[in-house]
Amino acid sequence: MSTMVIHNLVLESGETGSVAIDGSVISAIEPGSARVAPDAVVIDGGGKLLLPAFVDAHAHMDKSLLGREWYLNEVGPSLSEMVNNERRYRVEQNIDFREQTGRVGRRMIAAGTTHTRSFVDIDTDIGLKAFEGLMHTREDLRQGLSIQVVAFPQSGMLVRPGTVELMETALRNGADVVGGLDPSSMDRDPKGHLDTIFRMAGRFDVDIDIHLHEPGELGAFAIELIAERTKALGMQGRVTVSHAFCLGGVNDGYLAALIELLVANDIAIMSHGPSGGRPAPPVKRLHEAGVRLCAGNDGIRDTWGPLNMPDMLLRAFLITYRNNFRQDEDIEIALRMCSYGGADVIGLPDFGLGPGNIADLVIVEGQNPIEAMIERPARWLVMTGGRTVAREGACLI
Amino acid sequence: MSTMVIHNLVLESGETGSVAIDGSVISAIEPGSARVAPDAVVIDGGGKLLLPAFVDAHAHMDKSLLGREWYLNEVGPSLSEMVNNERRYRVEQNIDFREQTGRVGRRMIAAGTTHTRSFVDIDTDIGLKAFEGLMHTREDLRQGLSIQVVAFPQSGMLVRPGTVELMETALRNGADVVGGLDPSSMDRDPKGHLDTIFRMAGRFDVDIDIHLHEPGELGAFAIELIAERTKALGMQGRVTVSHAFCLGGVNDGYLAALIELLVANDIAIMSHGPSGGRPAPPVKRLHEAGVRLCAGNDGIRDTWGPLNMPDMLLRAFLITYRNNFRQDEDIEIALRMCSYGGADVIGLPDFGLGPGNIADLVIVEGQNPIEAMIERPARWLVMTGGRTVAREGACLI
Repeated sequence: MSTMVIHNLVLESGETGSVAIDGSVISAIEPGSARVAPDAVVIDGGGKLLLPAFVDAHAHMDKSLLGREWYLNEVGPSLSEMVNNERRYRVEQNIDFREQTGRVGRRMIAAGTTHTRSFVDIDTDIGLKAFEGLMHTREDLRQGLSIQVVAFPQSGMLVRPGTVELMETALRNGADVVGGLDPSSMDRDPKGHLDTIFRMAGRFDVDIDIHLHEPGELGAFAIELIAERTKALGMQGRVTVSHAFCLGGVNDGYLAALIELLVANDIAIMSHGPSGGRPAPPVKRLHEAGVRLCAGNDGIRDTWGPLNMPDMLLRAFLITYRNNFRQDEDIEIALRMCSYGGADVIGLPDFGLGPGNIADLVIVEGQNPIEAMIERPARWLVMTGGRTVAREGACLI
Repeated sequence: MSTMVIHNLVLESGETGSVAIDGSVISAIEPGSARVAPDAVVIDGGGKLLLPAFVDAHAHMDKSLLGREWYLNEVGPSLSEMVNNERRYRVEQNIDFREQTGRVGRRMIAAGTTHTRSFVDIDTDIGLKAFEGLMHTREDLRQGLSIQVVAFPQSGMLVRPGTVELMETALRNGADVVGGLDPSSMDRDPKGHLDTIFRMAGRFDVDIDIHLHEPGELGAFAIELIAERTKALGMQGRVTVSHAFCLGGVNDGYLAALIELLVANDIAIMSHGPSGGRPAPPVKRLHEAGVRLCAGNDGIRDTWGPLNMPDMLLRAFLITYRNNFRQDEDIEIALRMCSYGGADVIGLPDFGLGPGNIADLVIVEGQNPIEAMIERPARWLVMTGGRTVAREGACLI
């Protein structure tokens, strides 16, 4: 018997039906009207669309300046300029990381994201302050949003002695994943960088997620090294490469070989439909080859740029735009990256719109998911584990 | 003396001030509170942002399927497949062009667009039906939206005998601009195509706007031919090249030569921040060289794809995303393309937020234009020629 039934919803099949929720779990989803226990709460969905909750599998909640004074961006274009500018700015400004990560998290919930993997910068200037703020927010928002924390050496790891020790402290104190970053271009030592993070992952028995901005053959070489270590250490299914611009920047034969390595070692790819005209992973081709894919909103209004918003429907739109998807079935690939794909990659059990799964769901205006993605109306209802956590676009936590 | 005063607005300068409107004209914009006539209507702007109205300088209002049953897109990827599919579909479906163009127009107004240049397909299957529907809508919406109509040979011109005559009939019956399309790849005769449209423009004394999807050197050759004719016929300032992907696809020296041709002949470029990773005009470089730039939303939810929306704040966002703008002053280029730039290119006199100009304006939540572009809230108030034509995101016409 269900504790809540929402009638009159457009289901994933396109039929009109109901979802019944028993405590934190979906007890039934079916066309027509679900059986209703006498004491169940009954809600009319008004013909709106039922979607699985969104998974933001690549966030940087600690970087956001949301809710603070407008940041006038005059930062030079190189990666190192952006990294150094940010590190300096955050120390000067004495950012309250619990407050900032909380602001992003509440907007995520309001927009229907109930799970995220968030990188958190660890360096010898900021130390563990950002990590500690994010850990507070994880606790503050746990009823609405699960946060997987990645210890991330944004300013370099081997080139900045002391960083490894700080990352290890974070892992001892609750970080879930080891992050890596551009092993050649940032750390100047691809073997050293990757050996270090794989060793750390083994010691703490955690997954790995590596930011790889390195273009063309340099990035492709890093993927080879990552695949070698994944295989040698039995880490299949536990490694993600984020951005992986290089997959859009090598010739077709080399790309085919890299895809084979990814599939053979079950290495996942995160692509968020990058800005600019730079090469980007060919999402459809990767999907068709069986590479597991996820997406995320990256940094939200930070010193890197103001554009991103914590809304995975906008992210699906941008992945669609960036990949020039026009056919419905292609656009579905982008949409799935923002829910099921992310859940799969970051390892959420019992995710999805089916009986027995956790009741993480979004109800929104739209005749189908593509229309919801295009119009992006305020989310009418967001539920995390059977609890209503947002209504009419407002977070209730 | 003013007939309406709106107080408490963030002005373009960033100061808080008022705008006073006398009939259809802005009589004053100034920091602080404007003088108010005893009988004037006084409105509190609530600290919202005052923006110039938007100009969608590249629309295809007749193509839209907005408000109709969902169009399941399974169309093949080539330009000719998309063109042929669309021509066939519209004849089969017996589209009501007055209704469809009206739907797009009302959503434009709701989102703050008060002027548009809309291409309208003319071919030997559809004849002038789309044109006639758009002309009705131009009349229906004239209090909220001015529509400049471009007679556009979407299915080819010389390759489809009878098209030129139909275009001429449209020009005799109120079309404002002659449209061209890929003179080599579509009409297979660049000289013939361009000679024909320039001759037509001369005969009817109208401007020219040419869709140029041709990539690399082929498109660059078309720009040379266009510049030669612009110069020879004294058409400087009256020719626009839309899309112009080739400007992103030639080497740097050739690009510099093309930019010189554009500047010397005052040929404007329309770029909407194209989808996919294909080459695109380098907006910032063109702007810095003095090329006049504008933007538009292109087709809205049509057989080509479902992504575009009739919202020029979203368009500014996409131009920003596509050009990887991060600094505030770069983003301003994209924003200006969507208002002042469009007004300049399509030739609107008295446009802009200054005394004596027509009162075409938008008031929206946001601490500055970039934030409004990122958050894209419903437009609080839209005014065309001093008349309130939309409130809270709803068109009043």
